[in-house]
Amino acid sequence: MNLITGRQLYKNYKEYDQQDVEICGWVKSNRGSKNFGFLIINDGTFFNPVQVVYDKELDNFGEAAKLNVGTAVIVTGTLVATPEAKQPFEIQAKSVEIEGSCSFDYPLQKKRHTFEYLRKIAHLRPRANTFQAVFRVRSLVAYAIHKFFMERDFVYVHTPIITGQDCEGAGEMFQVTTLDLEAAVKKGEINYEEDFFEKPVNLTVSGQLAGETFAQAFRNIYTFGPTFRAEESNTTRHAAEFWMIEPEMAFADLEDNMEIAEQMIKYIIGYVLEYAPEEMKFFNQFVDKGLLERLHHVAESEFGRVTYTEAVKILEQHNDQFQYKVSWGIDLQTEHERFLTEKVFKKPVFVTDYPKDIKAFYMKMNDDEKTVAAMDLLVPAIGEIIGGSQREDSLEKLEKRMAELGMDPKDYDFYLDLRKYGSTRHSGFGLGFERMVMYVTGMANIRDVIPYPRTVGKCKY
Amino acid sequence: MNLITGRQLYKNYKEYDQQDVEICGWVKSNRGSKNFGFLIINDGTFFNPVQVVYDKELDNFGEAAKLNVGTAVIVTGTLVATPEAKQPFEIQAKSVEIEGSCSFDYPLQKKRHTFEYLRKIAHLRPRANTFQAVFRVRSLVAYAIHKFFMERDFVYVHTPIITGQDCEGAGEMFQVTTLDLEAAVKKGEINYEEDFFEKPVNLTVSGQLAGETFAQAFRNIYTFGPTFRAEESNTTRHAAEFWMIEPEMAFADLEDNMEIAEQMIKYIIGYVLEYAPEEMKFFNQFVDKGLLERLHHVAESEFGRVTYTEAVKILEQHNDQFQYKVSWGIDLQTEHERFLTEKVFKKPVFVTDYPKDIKAFYMKMNDDEKTVAAMDLLVPAIGEIIGGSQREDSLEKLEKRMAELGMDPKDYDFYLDLRKYGSTRHSGFGLGFERMVMYVTGMANIRDVIPYPRTVGKCKY
Repeated sequence: MNLITGRQLYKNYKEYDQQDVEICGWVKSNRGSKNFGFLIINDGTFFNPVQVVYDKELDNFGEAAKLNVGTAVIVTGTLVATPEAKQPFEIQAKSVEIEGSCSFDYPLQKKRHTFEYLRKIAHLRPRANTFQAVFRVRSLVAYAIHKFFMERDFVYVHTPIITGQDCEGAGEMFQVTTLDLEAAVKKGEINYEEDFFEKPVNLTVSGQLAGETFAQAFRNIYTFGPTFRAEESNTTRHAAEFWMIEPEMAFADLEDNMEIAEQMIKYIIGYVLEYAPEEMKFFNQFVDKGLLERLHHVAESEFGRVTYTEAVKILEQHNDQFQYKVSWGIDLQTEHERFLTEKVFKKPVFVTDYPKDIKAFYMKMNDDEKTVAAMDLLVPAIGEIIGGSQREDSLEKLEKRMAELGMDPKDYDFYLDLRKYGSTRHSGFGLGFERMVMYVTGMANIRDVIPYPRTVGKCKY
Repeated sequence: MNLITGRQLYKNYKEYDQQDVEICGWVKSNRGSKNFGFLIINDGTFFNPVQVVYDKELDNFGEAAKLNVGTAVIVTGTLVATPEAKQPFEIQAKSVEIEGSCSFDYPLQKKRHTFEYLRKIAHLRPRANTFQAVFRVRSLVAYAIHKFFMERDFVYVHTPIITGQDCEGAGEMFQVTTLDLEAAVKKGEINYEEDFFEKPVNLTVSGQLAGETFAQAFRNIYTFGPTFRAEESNTTRHAAEFWMIEPEMAFADLEDNMEIAEQMIKYIIGYVLEYAPEEMKFFNQFVDKGLLERLHHVAESEFGRVTYTEAVKILEQHNDQFQYKVSWGIDLQTEHERFLTEKVFKKPVFVTDYPKDIKAFYMKMNDDEKTVAAMDLLVPAIGEIIGGSQREDSLEKLEKRMAELGMDPKDYDFYLDLRKYGSTRHSGFGLGFERMVMYVTGMANIRDVIPYPRTVGKCKY
């Protein structure tokens, strides 16, 4: 079939002026009168729909006038540029064929629906305006990320989803098994020798450690894949299944790490502003009024830098404004993070050199032996969007830290090998993909930026 | 740090001629004599390594002369173009700093290792030549796929990994749970109300059905994500965890489907030939002698088309050459597929219109009511690389087929909705990502194109 897309029409309508075109789409609205009518259709390739005008000359005028919202149609007609009208062109129909009718109980009638309602029909909601915009922007953000790293010669690595590592945050992991659980209960025994991998395995919570093994071979790598947390927290920012981007760079220190993170965030914002201007305007108008201004501001700012210790000194002066009081050693809460980036710096800011006790074992110990070379990026309206660090590259220090934390080095033999065989100063960070999509769209609930969200008690389809 | 990459050096060495540069990398070999030496280093950004010449002028000449293979170094020196030598330039060292030493028991000494040996050190093998080539090409193939679909305005959709669907091929699925299995056995009861999702859930085997729901909103979409099969088959072509690409197109018939599939395969091949010429030359020389000729041939051929029924007629004439005899109704085996593409068509060929009984329930019934609008793409040296179909878009026919197969329509209410609300003729296919990587690299074992392969009984790291 040779059907011109809505996007092609919008891009090239001047070329098509006065020419016959064949297009397709789903009916968004249909206003008919006795002698003519307007059909608004959209084929999903472009945010703005196409207006089709039809009149009595149409063979099936009576049928066309009765088309329900949701019907799939194929229209041939003449494209006419309409420089004076709201839309830049319209199609004067010569034929309107029904590709697929739409039942009268179509749940997406032309009216506003709440996001809660739409979540219950996740298989239909991408047809609604907001979700057309969300999921196209989600797709563009994903591509922008690949493009950013590929232009810089990073190697994309698929780190494993099923993992035998269960060391970090084991309590929050999903177990993966092929055991017949009912049979095991009857037998009164779990025999892992009968399981697919002959031992208990889990879904990954992070590709970082595997990513590091590839950075020590390719210098610059990134992962982009699903990760899983079996956290029971029922918030607007947590899902059990989400995607993460984890770059990892050999011969790179904390400075290099922040520089790449800053460039990446700006690149993504620039990309969606350039390639989804209609969607971004929609979000700014209907979802989050200050969105465009905020994003432009971020794209143009030089991100701030402050150590955790300095940040705590600043925040302590405003402890009266916080629910959770600040003092050296605490993990910063969203209220503190937002205060720093929104009120103090008024732009994105990297907080660096956190106390070792609130950060992961693999972060590089600073000379003070109290802090580690960590960095979190805080952005207005969200708080933390990126967390990263320089990694400990000294075998001795890493082993010492693991011993302090009671970790078994045998579980990390592959990871320790990296420090034995040509260790390098190296750094990396993690970006929660959905957080980024929320950030650039202004959508407030993570369930509304994931095609089929998985949260506690919820796994439909 | 401002270290020029090996790739930048190779790309711009003429510009750098006679200039000082600072580079980094891991020592691949070190040949010293009394007064000077050659250090071959590679930072992993480019397939070919960089030659560093050092001599007695170096402060730490003695140390440099003893550098082990695997050591990480930072070198400053003058780049000198060497138009008469094998390599286009060399670096005359002014300083060689050790970034990280390498223990004498480094498992990757400069000699050839078997793939079997390297599989056991999956965390180190990306440093070996073959795996430098494999994993860079894997990364480029992934990007080529995204680029191909994005250039055609497809929307990238992340279909869910954890799924409540357990209808198709349930026996081969991995179960995902947060139940404490030991405790359940003690208690003598599996209580799914206590499980994270309050019911049994699995890892996805395909994103297609969810993908279709998005195609009915965006017209053209694709998925690219991990999929899982708990098949116990221990072959060189099966892994329990692998990545799949599944485009799905509304307003598209089987012809459109084949056209996109053909374009995509040619695009991927063209992309790796253009962006990884060094790696491709290496594969052709050391892994699969006929590789480049075969790929060029595929890129330049117009793919053949033959119906299953015609294909069976052709194959039946050669039944004496097959282990498994051909007759109408059988599922084609690899020997038959390869015979068709290698001996009969001598190029890639689409086989279409398979018997309904050997294909999935969702495929569009042909008018003969015996065959469905399926298509498999067969390519030389592999056999099937793509499987796809036009989907059944008639609610009535789909319900009828599901009833015949004893499927419960309730499990598919969302899928049937697509046929109620503006159904369209639509089509899609699945490409096994690793199969494609094997195809363009000539690597014979799927374990050697996956960073950390998961197969029955094997889940290390």
